[in-house]
Amino acid sequence: MTLETPDNDIEKIAELIRGGDFKTVSRAIRRVEDQDEGSEQLLDALWPGVGKAHRIGVTGPPGVGKSTFTRRLLQKFRGQGRTVGVVAVDPTSHISGGAVFGDRLRMDDLAMDPGVFIRSMGTRGSIGGLAYRATEVADVLDASGKDIIIFETVGVGQIELDITMAADTIIVLTMPGAGDAVQAMKSGLMEVGDIFIVNKSDLSGAEQMKSIYESVLRICGEKSGWHRPALTANSLSGDGIEAALRLVDSHRKFLQESGLLMEKRRHHEKNRIERIVNQRIADEFWGKERMESLDNALDTTEKRISPYAIAEWLFKM
Amino acid sequence: MTLETPDNDIEKIAELIRGGDFKTVSRAIRRVEDQDEGSEQLLDALWPGVGKAHRIGVTGPPGVGKSTFTRRLLQKFRGQGRTVGVVAVDPTSHISGGAVFGDRLRMDDLAMDPGVFIRSMGTRGSIGGLAYRATEVADVLDASGKDIIIFETVGVGQIELDITMAADTIIVLTMPGAGDAVQAMKSGLMEVGDIFIVNKSDLSGAEQMKSIYESVLRICGEKSGWHRPALTANSLSGDGIEAALRLVDSHRKFLQESGLLMEKRRHHEKNRIERIVNQRIADEFWGKERMESLDNALDTTEKRISPYAIAEWLFKM
Repeated sequence: MTLETPDNDIEKIAELIRGGDFKTVSRAIRRVEDQDEGSEQLLDALWPGVGKAHRIGVTGPPGVGKSTFTRRLLQKFRGQGRTVGVVAVDPTSHISGGAVFGDRLRMDDLAMDPGVFIRSMGTRGSIGGLAYRATEVADVLDASGKDIIIFETVGVGQIELDITMAADTIIVLTMPGAGDAVQAMKSGLMEVGDIFIVNKSDLSGAEQMKSIYESVLRICGEKSGWHRPALTANSLSGDGIEAALRLVDSHRKFLQESGLLMEKRRHHEKNRIERIVNQRIADEFWGKERMESLDNALDTTEKRISPYAIAEWLFKM
Repeated sequence: MTLETPDNDIEKIAELIRGGDFKTVSRAIRRVEDQDEGSEQLLDALWPGVGKAHRIGVTGPPGVGKSTFTRRLLQKFRGQGRTVGVVAVDPTSHISGGAVFGDRLRMDDLAMDPGVFIRSMGTRGSIGGLAYRATEVADVLDASGKDIIIFETVGVGQIELDITMAADTIIVLTMPGAGDAVQAMKSGLMEVGDIFIVNKSDLSGAEQMKSIYESVLRICGEKSGWHRPALTANSLSGDGIEAALRLVDSHRKFLQESGLLMEKRRHHEKNRIERIVNQRIADEFWGKERMESLDNALDTTEKRISPYAIAEWLFKM
């Protein structure tokens, strides 16, 4: 999307994205985040190139070192010549557009590497659809040819889980003292994780915590045929990062060979279509007239009409 | 809803609820939670009696003592002769139907008081609509004549915030060492809170933490004309609970006199109607035929059709 490419020349833009043009990718991501008018057409045009990247979700409680771990993993992938996109999502932050990544991800030294694209996303005022938009941002990065896409979230709330769930491989990061396995189970992390990593392995209790995780995972059994491993790592020294990368690759292989990758993606695509359709029929229903009727109904002095009755009335309008 | 009252005799059931019949209220709440067929008609019938109760949301990070605080507050209200309903929501729990309240709220001694109704809600398998159902459960309690309804949540995730936001007065509970005001701001608690309470005032640092909150609140300014107070309390000894109750009453008075209560409730009612309508039009759209068409579209070997194109095709069906 150089100065010569107008915003509405979708095919030209898609071509530049497929070629990996940094500025065009960056600008397309902004359009997707803003849900600009043309963004759906753009994503539609990019679709044939979407699906090649392996998507990794990194989740876990605040303070366990997700950013540093993500950076280490990224460096390992780059060392193998694989390109990486990072979508860092913070539902508690209203800042967006890359302003925070220098601070939060501390990846300044990677900013000049053309094989890396890092995008930070905040709520931009509205939390609704954040998980959905994060997936679309990943689609642009996927179409631009990135081999790996990492979703990184700040916490373990529902939105963070939604974002993580859209990944092919989910890494649950924890650390000694960050609560025990029972707490992890409460937060829903045990159910979603494919690989469990006890970070900060230099702290005492790391091996013990890994053992607890292994016991719990043994009791829980396999996840659709996948034996979920637990390991220790140290993002500062780099210990265990290579092992984590190998596990990610094993998991991808498992997903492909078992047919689960296809199944997972079909499931997400179905959810997505339903979401697009539901949004569209709601938009169509809530025209100016119905919106005004709703406001009028709410403003009448007769306050005793229930929301169900008003809904019924609007529905029949 | 005695044995003689069939589930479909809505008017009779509504009458029993208005009379405060414990068993009928309990059963109606279960129907609302399960989104039973007749639950909308029941809520519609109850609507004229909904809106009298003052709704209080108690939120804050895990471990700050929300359950004990809620219990203390409840006892104070009871001491004044006011009746209280508690809706305790745990989005991480799948248990529901009162099984956990003995354990979590430790309110066994209150179970025999007819002026108290406590309901624990979990996700029951699906997290979607939990905040919405919690509001409807509160409506039943409201219609049954409870003067006060307290929403208590376990954490500070988005769903917890959604539930809390439906309250008239929001109490943010914290404790010394549970993170500083900067963290509270990050979690979105500073924005939603009307009253800030530093619990466990016997711990060192409680007064200091209160001062930090006061400073931040001073910088933030008033919330629509309400000067948000911070105070210390001790749920174990009962210190500060009476002061908290007085602040709740002041806030209610403020909301009523400023017209904000009306405005707040109009806003929630509008959201609610939109939700009911959107659910209904989506249910109507997604008939058997479209669902099958979607599955067929996803199963075709031609995988390169984008979700946007499939949505468009379904939309035009």
